[in-house]
Amino acid sequence: MKLSIAAAIGLLALSLTEAAKTGSIKANPLPKPVNINWESSGRIHIGDLKYHGPRNEVLVKAFDRTASYIKKKWVPQSWEAPMPEWPKVPSTLPRDLGKRGDDDGDVDDDVEVENGRHRGAVNRVNVKVDDSEADLQHGVDESYNLKVTTDGTINIKAKTIWGALHAFTTLQQIVISDNGRNLFIEQPVTIDDVPKYTHRGVMYDTARNFIPIKNLKKQVEALAFSKLNVFHWHITDSQAWPLEIKHKDYRAFTRGAYSHREIYTQEHVRDLVKFARAHGVRVIPEIDMPAHSNKGWASVDPKTVACGDSWWSNDVWEHHSAVQPNPGHLDISYPGTYKILGQIFPEIAGLFKDDIFHVGFDELMPNCYEYSALTREWFDKNPGVTYNDLAQIWVNNTVEPIFKKSARRLMMWEDSVLFPAMHADIPKDVIMQSWNNGVDNIHALVKKGYDVVVTSADFFYLDCGHGGYVTNDARYNQQYKPPMNETLTKAFDAVAEYNNPYSPTLTNYGGAGASWCAPYKTWQRIYSYDFTWGLNDEEAKKVIGGEAAMWAEQVDATNLDTKVWPRAAALAELLWSGNRDSKGDKRTTELSARIFEFRERLVDLGLNASPLVPKFCIQNPHQCDLYKDQNVFAASDKAQDKARLEL
Amino acid sequence: MKLSIAAAIGLLALSLTEAAKTGSIKANPLPKPVNINWESSGRIHIGDLKYHGPRNEVLVKAFDRTASYIKKKWVPQSWEAPMPEWPKVPSTLPRDLGKRGDDDGDVDDDVEVENGRHRGAVNRVNVKVDDSEADLQHGVDESYNLKVTTDGTINIKAKTIWGALHAFTTLQQIVISDNGRNLFIEQPVTIDDVPKYTHRGVMYDTARNFIPIKNLKKQVEALAFSKLNVFHWHITDSQAWPLEIKHKDYRAFTRGAYSHREIYTQEHVRDLVKFARAHGVRVIPEIDMPAHSNKGWASVDPKTVACGDSWWSNDVWEHHSAVQPNPGHLDISYPGTYKILGQIFPEIAGLFKDDIFHVGFDELMPNCYEYSALTREWFDKNPGVTYNDLAQIWVNNTVEPIFKKSARRLMMWEDSVLFPAMHADIPKDVIMQSWNNGVDNIHALVKKGYDVVVTSADFFYLDCGHGGYVTNDARYNQQYKPPMNETLTKAFDAVAEYNNPYSPTLTNYGGAGASWCAPYKTWQRIYSYDFTWGLNDEEAKKVIGGEAAMWAEQVDATNLDTKVWPRAAALAELLWSGNRDSKGDKRTTELSARIFEFRERLVDLGLNASPLVPKFCIQNPHQCDLYKDQNVFAASDKAQDKARLEL
Repeated sequence: MKLSIAAAIGLLALSLTEAAKTGSIKANPLPKPVNINWESSGRIHIGDLKYHGPRNEVLVKAFDRTASYIKKKWVPQSWEAPMPEWPKVPSTLPRDLGKRGDDDGDVDDDVEVENGRHRGAVNRVNVKVDDSEADLQHGVDESYNLKVTTDGTINIKAKTIWGALHAFTTLQQIVISDNGRNLFIEQPVTIDDVPKYTHRGVMYDTARNFIPIKNLKKQVEALAFSKLNVFHWHITDSQAWPLEIKHKDYRAFTRGAYSHREIYTQEHVRDLVKFARAHGVRVIPEIDMPAHSNKGWASVDPKTVACGDSWWSNDVWEHHSAVQPNPGHLDISYPGTYKILGQIFPEIAGLFKDDIFHVGFDELMPNCYEYSALTREWFDKNPGVTYNDLAQIWVNNTVEPIFKKSARRLMMWEDSVLFPAMHADIPKDVIMQSWNNGVDNIHALVKKGYDVVVTSADFFYLDCGHGGYVTNDARYNQQYKPPMNETLTKAFDAVAEYNNPYSPTLTNYGGAGASWCAPYKTWQRIYSYDFTWGLNDEEAKKVIGGEAAMWAEQVDATNLDTKVWPRAAALAELLWSGNRDSKGDKRTTELSARIFEFRERLVDLGLNASPLVPKFCIQNPHQCDLYKDQNVFAASDKAQDKARLEL
Repeated sequence: MKLSIAAAIGLLALSLTEAAKTGSIKANPLPKPVNINWESSGRIHIGDLKYHGPRNEVLVKAFDRTASYIKKKWVPQSWEAPMPEWPKVPSTLPRDLGKRGDDDGDVDDDVEVENGRHRGAVNRVNVKVDDSEADLQHGVDESYNLKVTTDGTINIKAKTIWGALHAFTTLQQIVISDNGRNLFIEQPVTIDDVPKYTHRGVMYDTARNFIPIKNLKKQVEALAFSKLNVFHWHITDSQAWPLEIKHKDYRAFTRGAYSHREIYTQEHVRDLVKFARAHGVRVIPEIDMPAHSNKGWASVDPKTVACGDSWWSNDVWEHHSAVQPNPGHLDISYPGTYKILGQIFPEIAGLFKDDIFHVGFDELMPNCYEYSALTREWFDKNPGVTYNDLAQIWVNNTVEPIFKKSARRLMMWEDSVLFPAMHADIPKDVIMQSWNNGVDNIHALVKKGYDVVVTSADFFYLDCGHGGYVTNDARYNQQYKPPMNETLTKAFDAVAEYNNPYSPTLTNYGGAGASWCAPYKTWQRIYSYDFTWGLNDEEAKKVIGGEAAMWAEQVDATNLDTKVWPRAAALAELLWSGNRDSKGDKRTTELSARIFEFRERLVDLGLNASPLVPKFCIQNPHQCDLYKDQNVFAASDKAQDKARLEL
């Protein structure tokens, strides 16, 4: 009897029995642990889980969540199994016809060896933590050891409570049921686990559209469940300032929110930070400056904003004052900017617990500053100065005098040092977040000596591929696909066209749909990224992790979950234990079952995580593979490595 | 004071006051009525709405829904206003700096003329329907007249109750509030409205993933709210058969469902049909045959399914037995197929009220039939016969003998007559649904004499652009964007590459992301489609309407709303009153405000409709336009018409 048929008729219990016979394991946690060794003596029954460990509040509460989750008795929805055998292809008409699958529905009731306590009994969970005081900060030890013995005891050892929390998450994913009544772990198991990268996160933009705290909390739950540890909060942008400022002179900042209901009070912020911490997730705030600034500032003092009232001006690209609507940069030449910043920055920084504060610094548009009379005066008075000199003034006036007084370590977008039109000299202890040009920019930053967080738009941008959001965009008004004639061939010859998302030729009919970073990044795309390619071991250490970015031009509470999940889980595994198997080959195809299962669990947790496939593909492992050949990823790596080295 | 600033600080009441001064109207219903004439004598106060009209249950209940909705007191979130004036671009450094907007926050309290009853009073809604008995079927009169007089009386006239329901929907969208307490219609108004097309719908696929009835009902509400009148239900496909069959010999069909919880009982179906009818929405069922068939059939009698156990075989394209996993066609050569179909088809048809039944007929793969011994025998015994002859046997054995006995009119995918590899002669009274090759196929079908429903994948497919769903797909493993060298230029020269979504060259970096119908169809794309281009008036009449298609490979209850809405609203207006203004120019940009507002109302109705833009763009009309020039759509039409006529 084929698994596919059993599954399709909903006999999951049967499937599990089948699977047990083959010795395979159904409950493979995501991210895949670095070391996981299943024994073969048979099931460990799980009854009530009883905690024995340090009286640490974070730990005890996390254990309670784990135990409650497990009690709901999860029946696996997806599991890994080998590519099925297929009948031979009929080569000419009267040839051997492939046999049909046996669909008799018989249940094979092999009795299995079962270990551990009887149902209703208690499984002791021994939790040992070396240092219960270690703070949740960048670089804290997150390793853990989880051992499930034949007598049903569960032993967890970790250096810190943050490692122990990860052990609980793993435990949540290996205790399963086959009928919704019993609970078991498939085999005794030993797991030794430690993340490859220390910085693993998702960036949430709450400025383009507001997202309520309750939805952000759900994200935190999902981050923790996938062992991601950073909630990078892009709080403000030119479109809106939703963050409450209590300083008596600057309460008007939230007049830059979309409405009085779309504001994060300071109580909200503290609540989110506390909730995240309880889940082992760090909240890194970002106030994007000096570009991407308008709302809020404009209400407090309009003089702080350069080009705030300009037309962002795509009609004449040479006149553009912004990369997107609405324009606005903080006026670097206006002293009031620093006065206000110097007073609100400590207040904002005080709301957060993390050592790291992100101060933006992406996409400074020189044209914007042409709208500032003060800046034009400065140019007039200082012949020979450049936009880079202007950017340097920003750095000199902010990094030491303001930022470092309240934030232990800074993080910036790579533009601060790499953006051709306008950049500056930045201290080498600033963490650089790379979003452009894939490994080329990562290399450039590493060579300059920076620690790097990878958010390459070609792999990790979750917003791409949904078309543009700008209105009055006639590129969509392409009524027919031009036939492949000489004209079109010429168009393709034009290199500029290929690389220009504003090209009408490539907007529709297989093109980018006016999404500048199209196409949509699928979970396979995200997982495939070898972002340290070409770095030596020493250089690779400068890459401290990665983040997916959820830019919110077309995202709010209605579709946040579905855009982030389960794709971020592919990133989670990539950053935790990598994307390769013990042979060094890409294990993307093996991840299929894990991420399908993880998605079902996210839905169970209350998130609207997107389905990745027809449920048929979940219930029938590998039957939705594009190629029967299971080595296509390894082959494609080999071919590309060769081609790239030849460049 | 600029509207943008008022809006950004949340003073919607202020914005409305501003707007009233300019004489513009905020509450523009979607779809835009064919004729709408606003007067200028001022607000009509709205109190309790009291129904005076026929005692028809559908009508009275619909009125009650409308009155309840209005009572919630909607404050508009979006409105149309002209492109703002912008300061002059500073051409060199010491030049005139544009003035900054006035942000003094003063409220202009102009007293307005107000008509109608005082607050708390009753507004009489006179509803006159000529024929309360007209059934909800294709072609039923849906026109209505809605008149709001200065004394606050609302007069609705319609030929049928289905037209009156549309009048209610319009009424829902023109009664607004500016403070959440009062209620008014901005001006006296007269609306004469009638749809351009009789068939206006969305296709829902519930086979690739199951979607619960409660979610489908929410879709019905949104369809009705946008005056779409067809819920095309693609119930079954090769991956799953979720529909309960009660015939004693064939109860095993639902063993082809994903689980016992993922089944539509016949009670569910009747409930949905009734719910839809109460909302003026027709449910057209589709059982996709003879291709796209496997699950369900395989459980009842495996011999009915050809190639059900074959590998779908993209490794060797010549061997492919399916366009997607999993394979399966009904075996045309097996008599048992017709025996079963003849018994279940009347049962299924009996669950629905609509005259039209869709019997599929898309994507017949000749290779699939090579896996059927009976079909191979038939080929052997009948030298010279073709796959088309095989398809014709299907038609001869089903259309008259089975389908027409239970369904008054049939609908099929265009493949039945246009698919090159395998098609048949089909009676001319069958409605053809066109999904391929844009207007070329529409023309071909019209020339053959068929009525056509337009679902062109290049414009109306809602699933496109989210990447492929197949696993083991190494096309995503493209680590770097090849530099534009000779090799790549040559690749672009290859026409085949351009048109092949399986091309690795164009999967990533601006390519299609392995989505065969990429890119994502934005609302502007959907709305722009001139699907009767090139047809004369007589031919154009054969186009009876259109449908958006929500194929569900990557859709279920978690993300159904967000994928369909508000994009389907762009289709709704296109099919109701077209995409052009009184001058004949495309009014896509004008639709912006309507569709933004409509989206907010959908969210209020309880749907997770996607945000289309940063809220900034909603609150600041035209500030997110790509071009300042408001005639770019008209210009692009002109250019394309010229180019196309020259082809």
